Amino acid sequence: MKVLVINAGSSSLKYQLYDMTDESVLAKGRVERIGMDSAILVHEPTDKQDVTEVSEILEHTTAIRKVVDILTHPEHGVLSSISEIQAVGHRVVHGGESFSSSVIVTPEVKKEIKRLFDLAPLHNPAHIMGIDAVELNMPGVPQTVVFDTAFHQTMPAKTYMYAIPRVLYTKHKVRRYGFHGTSHYYVSHQAADFLGKPMEELKIVTCHIGNGGSVTAVLNGKSFDTSMGMTPLEGLMMGTRSGDLDPAIVPYVMGKEGLTINEVNSMLNKHSGLQAISGLSSDMREITQAMDEGDRNATLAFDMYEYRIRKYIGAYAAAMNGIDALVFTAGVGENAALVRERVCEQLSFLGIEFDHESNKVRSGDNRRISTASSKVQVLVIPTNEELVIARDTYRLIEENGK
Amino acid sequence: MKVLVINAGSSSLKYQLYDMTDESVLAKGRVERIGMDSAILVHEPTDKQDVTEVSEILEHTTAIRKVVDILTHPEHGVLSSISEIQAVGHRVVHGGESFSSSVIVTPEVKKEIKRLFDLAPLHNPAHIMGIDAVELNMPGVPQTVVFDTAFHQTMPAKTYMYAIPRVLYTKHKVRRYGFHGTSHYYVSHQAADFLGKPMEELKIVTCHIGNGGSVTAVLNGKSFDTSMGMTPLEGLMMGTRSGDLDPAIVPYVMGKEGLTINEVNSMLNKHSGLQAISGLSSDMREITQAMDEGDRNATLAFDMYEYRIRKYIGAYAAAMNGIDALVFTAGVGENAALVRERVCEQLSFLGIEFDHESNKVRSGDNRRISTASSKVQVLVIPTNEELVIARDTYRLIEENGK
Repeated sequence: MKVLVINAGSSSLKYQLYDMTDESVLAKGRVERIGMDSAILVHEPTDKQDVTEVSEILEHTTAIRKVVDILTHPEHGVLSSISEIQAVGHRVVHGGESFSSSVIVTPEVKKEIKRLFDLAPLHNPAHIMGIDAVELNMPGVPQTVVFDTAFHQTMPAKTYMYAIPRVLYTKHKVRRYGFHGTSHYYVSHQAADFLGKPMEELKIVTCHIGNGGSVTAVLNGKSFDTSMGMTPLEGLMMGTRSGDLDPAIVPYVMGKEGLTINEVNSMLNKHSGLQAISGLSSDMREITQAMDEGDRNATLAFDMYEYRIRKYIGAYAAAMNGIDALVFTAGVGENAALVRERVCEQLSFLGIEFDHESNKVRSGDNRRISTASSKVQVLVIPTNEELVIARDTYRLIEENGK
Repeated sequence: MKVLVINAGSSSLKYQLYDMTDESVLAKGRVERIGMDSAILVHEPTDKQDVTEVSEILEHTTAIRKVVDILTHPEHGVLSSISEIQAVGHRVVHGGESFSSSVIVTPEVKKEIKRLFDLAPLHNPAHIMGIDAVELNMPGVPQTVVFDTAFHQTMPAKTYMYAIPRVLYTKHKVRRYGFHGTSHYYVSHQAADFLGKPMEELKIVTCHIGNGGSVTAVLNGKSFDTSMGMTPLEGLMMGTRSGDLDPAIVPYVMGKEGLTINEVNSMLNKHSGLQAISGLSSDMREITQAMDEGDRNATLAFDMYEYRIRKYIGAYAAAMNGIDALVFTAGVGENAALVRERVCEQLSFLGIEFDHESNKVRSGDNRRISTASSKVQVLVIPTNEELVIARDTYRLIEENGK
C-alpha cells in the first residue's frame, strides 16, 4: 500500500509518499507561499533529481493538484497513476479532548476538527483546507487524521488542569493539551526498543527541541505530563516563543504598551524567545556561533534556553520519582551537541554519566550519549512524525477493510 | 534597644514590639478594617491579657496612634513611654532592582519605593502610608525598610530574565524579582545552623507555603532561583492564586469573557488556586478535611497543589545539580504533615529517606523529618520574618550610630 502523508499549514504544505511494504519513502516535498503568485513547489523524489517549480498557487486545492501532478509526472514522478495512492494521512495539530488516537476522516470528524478552531486558530483551519483539497483532487481515497495532542490524552487531571475557575474548563475548554505528541510517542518507543526494555516498565523524559520545543514525562508508555499547555506557547523557551512567564506580565504589558489581545499573542509567539534575548536569531546554530565570538546577548539566550530544558527534566524526574532514560530529538535535540552537553553535565545528581565523546559524533541513527553503565541512559533519537502518520494510516485502512 | 516592627497593608497593619537585648517579643497585634468605622485593634501583650477594641479608624495615621496608645496604656501597655522605642522597621514587598538589602528610611528611599508603585500597586503604597504614619506619631524615631525582594537580588540573569522583548525589561522593569525573601533567607540560615554546616557549602531548597507560596533554590547561601516572578502570581498553586499558567490563556480568557486587565488580574489572584479547584476553600485545613470525607474536587485541588511543589523541588535540584537539604516553612509548610508526606514520598530518587513518624510530631521548633542518615535532609523550620526585620533594624541603627 502506498500512503501519502500531508502536513498542511495556512500558507504551506508538506508531503511525503510512503511505500508501506517496506516503509520506504518514494518522494517528499513541500509547497510554500500558498496564496501568492510566486508559490514554490520543491519536489524531492528519492531516486531522482530534485525539482523546484515557481507558479501561482492561490489555495490548497491547487497546491494538492500540483503535488498530484508532480508525483505522476513522466520525468519527475514516482507513480504511474495517482490511483496507486490508497490512503492519505494528515497531521492535525489540535484534537482537543475529542481524539485520543488517529481516526479515519468522516463528515463527523471534520465537524469536530472545526469545532476546535478556537483552540488552534492558526492550524486546524489549514488542516481542513488540506483535507478538502485531497477530497477534490483524489475523490474516493480514504483519509486519516493523526493528532499532535492525542498521545497526551492519557495525562491525569492533576497535570492537565490549571488552577483557575473551573468554568473556564467546562465552558471554554481551557486545560493543558500538549503538542508534538506524535514525536514524543515515536521517540519514547524507539528508546524502549534501543534499551531492549518494555515501555511499561520505563520512566522516560523526552525533549523535542526544534524551533518549537516541548518536554514530556512518559511514564510506563503513557504521557504523564508535558510542557506545552493549552497552546504551544507554554513551557520551554523557543525560537520565537517566550515559554513560561509570570501570567501577570501579560495584562501588565498590555496596559503599559496599550496592546490588543492579538498584539500580545503575536509578541509572545513571534517576537520572543531566542530571537528576543539574542537580538540576533531564533536559530540555535547562529546563537552558538555568536557565543563563540563572545556575543553576550547570545550567551544569555543560550544559558536561559539550556537552563529551562534542565529545569523541566528535573521537574519531570520529580513527577515520576526518578527516570530511566532521557531522550533528545528534533532539530536542536538531534544536532546541537553543546545544548545536550550543558544540560546533561549538571544532571549527574540524577545518575547521568555523560559520554562527551559519543555526544560529539554526528549521525542520523538512534544512539547513546551516556556511558553504557550510566544509571540514566541518555539517547539521541531522530524523530519521524511522518512515519508514525503513515503507519497509523496504513493500520486504520487495513483494519477498516477487514 | 526596643524595636517596633510594622507590616502595613492597604486596610490592615500588623505590629510586633521587640526588646533586642534578648530578642524577646513584648507585645504583638494587628489593626484590621482600616478605613471603616468599625475597625478592630487586637493587642496581645506577652505577659498580660489580650485586648480587642472596635473604633473608627479611617487611615493609617490613626491606626499607628492607636498602636502607640495601647503600647503605653497604663493597664494593657508594655512601655512607660513611647520614647522607649528607638527604631521602627517596616516590611516592604517590592524593592525592585534598587534594594538588595535593608536600609534606613530617607526621603530618597521613600521616593524610590514610590517609583516602584507600578510593580506592587497593592502593597508599596500601603507601606508608604505606614512609614508616614509613624513619622507623624513618633517624630524623630529612625525607621528602616526590609524588602521581600532583597534576598533574591543575587539571582543570575539567566534565572531572572523572561524570554520576551528586552525593551520590556529596560523600559518597564519586567523581570523575575521573587518574594518571601526574608523568610527564605531566615529558614535557609536556620537550616544551615541546624545541620551544623556553613551556608557557603550547601544547596538548599526552601518551600515557603502559606496562603501565598514560593520555592527558592538557595545555592551557597544565595538565592539562585525562585518560583514567584515579577509579581507574586507566578509559581506554585496558592490559596486563591493560579500560579503557573500557559501565558496564552490570559488573552484567550479576556477575549472569550470580555474581561478587562483589572478583571483578569483579579480572577487570577483572588478567585483561582485551591479555592477555584476545590470550589470550597483556600485553606489547606478545610481541603484536607473534605478529602477525608471523599470530596473529589478537594482531592484534585490537593493533588495539583502537592504536585506543583514537587515539580519545583525537582526543577531546582536540576538547577543546582542536586540538593543537600529541603526545608518546609509557613502556615502549610509548618503544619500540614500530609502535604510534606506526599511531596517527599515521591522524592526518594533525590536521596530523601522520609521519616513518617517525626513528620507527624507537632512542634514549634526547628526539626528534622527525614532520617538522620538521609542523603538529603528534610527539615521543618518555623519562619520568623518579624525577627529578621527587628534584627536588620537593630543592626542598621547601631551601625549608623557609630
